[in-house]
Amino acid sequence: MNSVSDRINALRKRMKEENLSAWIIPSADSHASEYVSDYWRGRTWISGFTGSAGTVVILKDKAGLWADGRYFIQAETEIEDSGIDLFKFGLPDTILFEDWIVQELSENATVGYDGKVMSYDFLKTLKKKSKIKNISVRTDLDILNDIWSDRPSFPTENIFDHDVKYAGKSRAEKLKDVRAEMSKKKASHHLITTLDDIAWLYNYRGNDIPCCPFALAYTLISQKEAQLFIDTKKVPDSLRKEFLNDNIEVCEYTAIDEALSDLKQASSLLFDPKTVNGHFIELLSDEILKIEGRTVTTMMKSLKNAVEREHNKECHRKDGVAMVKFLKFLDENVPGGRVTEILASDMAEKYRSEIDTFKGLSFTTIPAYGPNAAMMHYSTCEETSCVIGEDNFFLVDSGGQYLDGTTDITRTMNYGPLNEQQRKDYTLVLRGHIALAKAKFMKGARGCQLDIFARGPIWNEAIDYACGTGHGVGNFLNVHEGPQSISTRFIDEEMRVGMNITNEPGIYRKDKWGIRIENIYFVKEFEVNEFGTFFEFDTVTVCPINIKPVIKEMMLSSEIEWLNNYHSYVYEQLCPYLDEGEQAWLKENTKAL
Amino acid sequence: MNSVSDRINALRKRMKEENLSAWIIPSADSHASEYVSDYWRGRTWISGFTGSAGTVVILKDKAGLWADGRYFIQAETEIEDSGIDLFKFGLPDTILFEDWIVQELSENATVGYDGKVMSYDFLKTLKKKSKIKNISVRTDLDILNDIWSDRPSFPTENIFDHDVKYAGKSRAEKLKDVRAEMSKKKASHHLITTLDDIAWLYNYRGNDIPCCPFALAYTLISQKEAQLFIDTKKVPDSLRKEFLNDNIEVCEYTAIDEALSDLKQASSLLFDPKTVNGHFIELLSDEILKIEGRTVTTMMKSLKNAVEREHNKECHRKDGVAMVKFLKFLDENVPGGRVTEILASDMAEKYRSEIDTFKGLSFTTIPAYGPNAAMMHYSTCEETSCVIGEDNFFLVDSGGQYLDGTTDITRTMNYGPLNEQQRKDYTLVLRGHIALAKAKFMKGARGCQLDIFARGPIWNEAIDYACGTGHGVGNFLNVHEGPQSISTRFIDEEMRVGMNITNEPGIYRKDKWGIRIENIYFVKEFEVNEFGTFFEFDTVTVCPINIKPVIKEMMLSSEIEWLNNYHSYVYEQLCPYLDEGEQAWLKENTKAL
Repeated sequence: MNSVSDRINALRKRMKEENLSAWIIPSADSHASEYVSDYWRGRTWISGFTGSAGTVVILKDKAGLWADGRYFIQAETEIEDSGIDLFKFGLPDTILFEDWIVQELSENATVGYDGKVMSYDFLKTLKKKSKIKNISVRTDLDILNDIWSDRPSFPTENIFDHDVKYAGKSRAEKLKDVRAEMSKKKASHHLITTLDDIAWLYNYRGNDIPCCPFALAYTLISQKEAQLFIDTKKVPDSLRKEFLNDNIEVCEYTAIDEALSDLKQASSLLFDPKTVNGHFIELLSDEILKIEGRTVTTMMKSLKNAVEREHNKECHRKDGVAMVKFLKFLDENVPGGRVTEILASDMAEKYRSEIDTFKGLSFTTIPAYGPNAAMMHYSTCEETSCVIGEDNFFLVDSGGQYLDGTTDITRTMNYGPLNEQQRKDYTLVLRGHIALAKAKFMKGARGCQLDIFARGPIWNEAIDYACGTGHGVGNFLNVHEGPQSISTRFIDEEMRVGMNITNEPGIYRKDKWGIRIENIYFVKEFEVNEFGTFFEFDTVTVCPINIKPVIKEMMLSSEIEWLNNYHSYVYEQLCPYLDEGEQAWLKENTKAL
Repeated sequence: MNSVSDRINALRKRMKEENLSAWIIPSADSHASEYVSDYWRGRTWISGFTGSAGTVVILKDKAGLWADGRYFIQAETEIEDSGIDLFKFGLPDTILFEDWIVQELSENATVGYDGKVMSYDFLKTLKKKSKIKNISVRTDLDILNDIWSDRPSFPTENIFDHDVKYAGKSRAEKLKDVRAEMSKKKASHHLITTLDDIAWLYNYRGNDIPCCPFALAYTLISQKEAQLFIDTKKVPDSLRKEFLNDNIEVCEYTAIDEALSDLKQASSLLFDPKTVNGHFIELLSDEILKIEGRTVTTMMKSLKNAVEREHNKECHRKDGVAMVKFLKFLDENVPGGRVTEILASDMAEKYRSEIDTFKGLSFTTIPAYGPNAAMMHYSTCEETSCVIGEDNFFLVDSGGQYLDGTTDITRTMNYGPLNEQQRKDYTLVLRGHIALAKAKFMKGARGCQLDIFARGPIWNEAIDYACGTGHGVGNFLNVHEGPQSISTRFIDEEMRVGMNITNEPGIYRKDKWGIRIENIYFVKEFEVNEFGTFFEFDTVTVCPINIKPVIKEMMLSSEIEWLNNYHSYVYEQLCPYLDEGEQAWLKENTKAL
């Protein structure tokens, strides 16, 4: 079964055996993860489409792939001659895949998918839409698994204790907090299936998904018991003992089904319908009260405690040292054409890997020269990696996972003179970054309000960036962490003290260049007075911002003042950890504007 | 029945006769109006509380008044010894009146209110909450009317044609647009009960409510027919003829009940559950399909057409001339203590009344000196009117109704030296106003995003104003008109070309002063390019902004530039309509900063 059409035919055979008229294969795991392990890359296996997001639907005689704007060209190439049609997801005229299924299927037909890989909310939507043709939905099969002979196995690496000296709060304390929230919501049980929430709650980390330091697991918590469902071979004895001390029972990963089926009649189960999969909820007996609500650890996790905040600052200082070495390396080696995108990416990783608490990258480095940087989610490879030149910007977005935190930083560098438009764009992005960084705002402000601080100076020139301005960052967890976010989209979530957020406005000109300047900030209290409570941002990222392209006349004096203060702070923080040559480089690159 | 307790006793007698355990009396009419005519001021009559907003609930042995923060002190005084308890609406611990009713009433009891004066949405909420005690809701009685012997009668002034030369669109064209929207929503009928919508649609104006140039009416529209329910004596023959020409039938105001009861079975009625009263919807036969949705004229009305925009600018020019005369009068008469708040208010009205198209004020003038201005909704009277002095701000918020538009403008003046904090506050408010006025923003931006432009410079000093930043303004209609609005509250309504909006940031320091600077702007297109469509604001209000308190060093050069350009424009626009002395005054008050 080496060709895509062989695979599709095999699947159609299984569909026929099960009397299924449609089968859905999304790019998702059983945990609503942003990045999935290879075990769940069935959508790539069945279609040949390698993009990070997309959904395939196989009918008896048709097949479709829904891919978004980032992948229109790539998808077209990759699914050519496969018999799969491309549906350009996100365009106004493109039908949703679930609507397409209802449109194509006959009355009383059956559609199926692995019920573990889509949320309960999706299942409800699909069932509702299917009703008008009396179409049944099956979620108890995994027929792709039956034909996918070389399916990658589950990851097997051990998990390890995440020391309370980094976490700042013990498992027992966290469980107590969770149970208090459950009481408030009148829930006898709480089901959590998101991997970072579970790793955060039980203070462990793992290595099941690249760049994501956690492990495949579920947990079911009652007022007295806590069950952690995980491949038990991954749990070292020492950790198992610690779990036992806190009355956390380690169960097999696959035992969750039985635990849910066996839930007692008087139970009330709190779960997040946006992340918990539909299969799990269908297992529940009808007598169980379903309480839909956000996973309670999500907000707790986002409010970093004092210990976490302190470690985080230390971690960013070390990350800043690595960045200085990396940027100095580029300064010394780019002129003359000695550095490719791939080499730059490797060097960024090398300098980070020298840090004592380093545990890997927090995402695949984006090292993008010139037009490559206009693609916001670019990653380099042998085919696209070019030599970094001297007449355009080099954007590098990178970060590390450390025992003491997660980093995410973007700098946009140049190694020769730039033209007026390049410098103007750069100065606008810098002004946007600074406007948000120095903003004071009232308690209650939402991300879509703060967004305008960063976007305002850029809109003022009739330019926009088609993405958000900031996201939360985990603490040695996911590099994208909610619920906070700064973007034009309204999300009813106020910024709270202890949350962190990236600040990353940009300008992306197709086929020309891309500019982004990204730091992380904590929200902290600024002032409480007769008008209310005001917040401001506390600097976390410590690394010089390129000042070479800046058109000083475009900057406000308050913006120049912020930049100079930031650079004094960077110099003072990093200097003690650098050798003489690096110090000189830093001095030059943090000089007052 | 001169005392409040006599009145309450009489009501309780009627309640007993009808077997009612609770009666609700809100401050509302049958049209969801912001301002109501005296006929509907029953809440004041029954309770003695004269505030503009508030709800009274009478039980067999208890009574409550729900009033908001503006009226806590006033309400306490006015209902003292009445047997009515004050419930401070808006405080976190205050129970809602409908919850209080459910709490106090026994199982199977009955609560009633005049079903015409609260929305269908409210009725649904009340019924839902009443269910848990099996409490019935009656909406078919008006028992207050039975005992309110000296109830004011309905207003009787004639309505008049609003010339299409001002409206820019004929009744026939507007009806055609409405019917096209009805078709899209698959509605055979559309019920409109909001007075400004009806006056806009049929191009008439009236005089039933002070400052609101429309008349009590309802309308029911089908694809072929249009019925206007109104006191038919108010419709002059000439206008009735015009209505007939456009196939608009004039029916008695009270005939609406029968028209709704008689709607044919196959009908589908579009109505806005937020504005249409519950009684009307209860009249409908069960077979009628209820389509809940926004009144379709609301958006049409807010998008001012080219004719309206041009007249509006002309109207604001004339209003600006009146304002210049008024501000010059204050300049010449305030020093020496010759002007009270009441005199100032009268003079503002006098200068406006000299304009040919003037039809009255658009709201009660707010002429507030010193601490009085810290109360955002202050209005003066014999008791509070003070002499305008020279060591504090005089804030005046005023506007007129004209055949060619509605104006709303606030200026904050001073007639002597101010202290540093006064000048700093003033400069911050001015900076906020200018930041919003000169903003460029992308199509799709919502009011809560734009709000930050104005609020940002004020938040930056840990100051806030506890109200919105801007509202739409009708065209010789309501001075507060939706759906657009600029405030920290998320309203899912994008700014569109042709909408207007006020820009009125402020700073209000209790017992000290209040500052507000308010202009009206139209939304217009700025640029369309590869990044999308960008909008900007087009100046409508033409009147000098007080520059005396400005601390120039706090202003950005781009802000000074905006202000100087605005003042050049004001001078150029108004100069031709002023005498020599006024021109000299204007020259001095529009000089470059």
